[in-house]
Amino acid sequence: MKGDTGNVIAVIGDGSLSGGEAYEGLNNAAVLNSNIIIIVNDNEMSIAENQGGLYTNLKLLRDTQGKAENNFFKTLGFEYYYIDEGHNIEKLISLFKEVKDQNKPVIIHMHTIKGKGLKQAEENKEAYHWIMPGTLDNKPLDNTEVQEDYNTLTTDYILKKAEKDSSVIAISPATPGAYGFTPEFRKKLGKQYTDVGIAEEHAVAYASSLAKNGAKPILAILSSFVQRTYDQLSQDLALNNSPATILVYWGAITDGDATHLGTFDIPLVSNIPNIVYLAPTCKEEYLKMLDWSVEQNNHPVAIRVPYGNFVSTGAEDTTDYSILNKFKVEEEGNEVAIIGLGNFFHLGKEVKSELQEKHGINATLINPKFISGIDEALLNALKVNHKLVITLEDGELNGGFGEKISRFYGNSGMKVLNFGSDKEFTDKVPLNELYSRYHLTKELIIKDIQNVIEKTPV
Amino acid sequence: MKGDTGNVIAVIGDGSLSGGEAYEGLNNAAVLNSNIIIIVNDNEMSIAENQGGLYTNLKLLRDTQGKAENNFFKTLGFEYYYIDEGHNIEKLISLFKEVKDQNKPVIIHMHTIKGKGLKQAEENKEAYHWIMPGTLDNKPLDNTEVQEDYNTLTTDYILKKAEKDSSVIAISPATPGAYGFTPEFRKKLGKQYTDVGIAEEHAVAYASSLAKNGAKPILAILSSFVQRTYDQLSQDLALNNSPATILVYWGAITDGDATHLGTFDIPLVSNIPNIVYLAPTCKEEYLKMLDWSVEQNNHPVAIRVPYGNFVSTGAEDTTDYSILNKFKVEEEGNEVAIIGLGNFFHLGKEVKSELQEKHGINATLINPKFISGIDEALLNALKVNHKLVITLEDGELNGGFGEKISRFYGNSGMKVLNFGSDKEFTDKVPLNELYSRYHLTKELIIKDIQNVIEKTPV
Repeated sequence: MKGDTGNVIAVIGDGSLSGGEAYEGLNNAAVLNSNIIIIVNDNEMSIAENQGGLYTNLKLLRDTQGKAENNFFKTLGFEYYYIDEGHNIEKLISLFKEVKDQNKPVIIHMHTIKGKGLKQAEENKEAYHWIMPGTLDNKPLDNTEVQEDYNTLTTDYILKKAEKDSSVIAISPATPGAYGFTPEFRKKLGKQYTDVGIAEEHAVAYASSLAKNGAKPILAILSSFVQRTYDQLSQDLALNNSPATILVYWGAITDGDATHLGTFDIPLVSNIPNIVYLAPTCKEEYLKMLDWSVEQNNHPVAIRVPYGNFVSTGAEDTTDYSILNKFKVEEEGNEVAIIGLGNFFHLGKEVKSELQEKHGINATLINPKFISGIDEALLNALKVNHKLVITLEDGELNGGFGEKISRFYGNSGMKVLNFGSDKEFTDKVPLNELYSRYHLTKELIIKDIQNVIEKTPV
Repeated sequence: MKGDTGNVIAVIGDGSLSGGEAYEGLNNAAVLNSNIIIIVNDNEMSIAENQGGLYTNLKLLRDTQGKAENNFFKTLGFEYYYIDEGHNIEKLISLFKEVKDQNKPVIIHMHTIKGKGLKQAEENKEAYHWIMPGTLDNKPLDNTEVQEDYNTLTTDYILKKAEKDSSVIAISPATPGAYGFTPEFRKKLGKQYTDVGIAEEHAVAYASSLAKNGAKPILAILSSFVQRTYDQLSQDLALNNSPATILVYWGAITDGDATHLGTFDIPLVSNIPNIVYLAPTCKEEYLKMLDWSVEQNNHPVAIRVPYGNFVSTGAEDTTDYSILNKFKVEEEGNEVAIIGLGNFFHLGKEVKSELQEKHGINATLINPKFISGIDEALLNALKVNHKLVITLEDGELNGGFGEKISRFYGNSGMKVLNFGSDKEFTDKVPLNELYSRYHLTKELIIKDIQNVIEKTPV
């Protein structure tokens, strides 16, 4: 468009080629008659192993040194080059010289080794896909002393359930390690496990169709990748009211990088009709919700898997979650009501204690459990002896949970304060800095509460 | 999973094959070792003409009666059958008998004629893709008496702009007819027009990359299909702050079917950081916003193209939209403030008139213009002599515009009423029924206003 004549070079891994966005881009790039060189870095791995029909073709191409007639890239209209020695810089340079400055779409399929140069990474490709700084030489995935956490709860539950019920199936879009879906777990499940590859859209559509026809799919997905599935959550899952179970992991304000934030899933999921989005606060609630979801046939259900400290109350949860949008009053009080959603229920509890101890306020503490709807009867009842309701949510305020409470009270005298994160991309900002910025500490919350209470007549 | 043994048959058109979700599904279906038959109904057309590298391969397959070695479906691992006479029932039955009851993934590529059996549809494939009941025999696309509307404004603007500036490019994801991007318009634009096919994800990523590198992309998309682009709006467009222009058409509460609703785009787009989402209320504002967006370099901008009656005030809009989130007070009053967003500004105006005439209330009327942010200074100023703010938006309330206003006033004595649609899928429900259900008529709004005012002390 600008009349420039440079070489446009795109790089993509073989694992990412299973994603629909990549395919759509290839399809368009192939016909633009422009100078584009796409480097396919084929290390024979996605995050875990590759999944899908495409990979039989990539293997065929590797096995034939790129000479096989049947060639995915050529079917889309690309000129195709294969280089087996993808770590040989001289050969690469020579090939790049050959393909540059041509007004046609070119694929360079280069074969590389994942983890090249670090022995333990070459030998443990999946475990070393992503590791924390300082752990380079540690033995990865040392499972000998795994403690109970929300991952082990989930995998234990799925294994037991799947053994008893052959219609139970666990699904992952290429990130099994994040949920503790270890190679051993996957092997045990056999046909009752599908990794669809980096293809989150299809993961939801697939789960939806399985549920619609009577199977019991449990799809695990990270909050930051749920955003790839909005269309399928709405049109495939919700519109068909398919009773699949979606586990949303890592939904929280974190110090993560800007492409892996967990703050957007609440606005995204909870404003789609029909989906029941749940926020457990402890082991017992999580297991009860999970089992309810898997066994019921009336709703698509998403569960925001707790993030942060593992909490077990020891008290069995006997709630009937088929009664939708029923919040739980954990401790009755007056004047101020604290609605602490999911991960932030515990922050709410701390605020309540401090209000009691230091300010003589006996606040009501509520565990809403449901993200996707509000308990109107309870909210109305609070009007009798409360003048302020605060909401705490571990995610973006805009379009989120708290705003629904604010809207509900709009025609009344009830004051409302919503606490959560701003509408912004943050990039590796320390968590305590974010908590200060968003007033998500006990002290700052109480200060805001006092400001409102002091101005409000009894 | 259930141990059933039936034949699973999926049907897809050639046009839909450009979509990423279809590709992701093919990739997984190819390796499940289950009984699946996928019928590719190839009528050589998308909604408009097909776009993308894939279609050169489909043509090759048609031209060789399916015999070409280089075969997209075979590269993914499918067993492949071609049938040229796709309207020959006997031949189809014979082929279906041949492929049924096999535990392998099968593609039947059948060649058909779009519009088959209706002469004018066969001859005017694009125009007859979708027509209103009762218009079967009308001459479609009679452009001789086209009146000015938001479509003609847009196409006129783009043609003039593109002529002067070669970096301007219009983009459509396969639905050019919806925006009046006629074959003539497309031809005039030449290389300054790209139809990416049914590939909304790539459309946004493509627009984002063009903008990032200095071109001026204008992407037109329907509200109901914006939902396919959440990930790209967030990760490609917003995170990179790419100054592309996205025109969102048909964003409104309508009597449409459940798969084409226009009520979800506000919660979807406006809660993503960095995107400036604008809601013009008339011709003059729309053109000013459009030109501002195309010429600026600081923000990704989405514009909710007005839907419904065409409105021209005749008064040039001189607003500087680079001052973000500045609402416009159209008429100053007191007691009640009406914030009428986009299409519903006109409803707000009617409510104001009626309040004045029948109830002696001189309400303030506000045109917010910005969907994605609020004018805190103005909202604070309203506290002085207003006791109720109402918001009107032509879309879903949950996660929408009005709730942001409710949240803002949560710590104050200001009452707020939000009007918009419920969180639900509606299917061809008459518009006046929906307006009654959601209290979106002048009368019902005023009744709700009175209910609040009467209970609120001065």
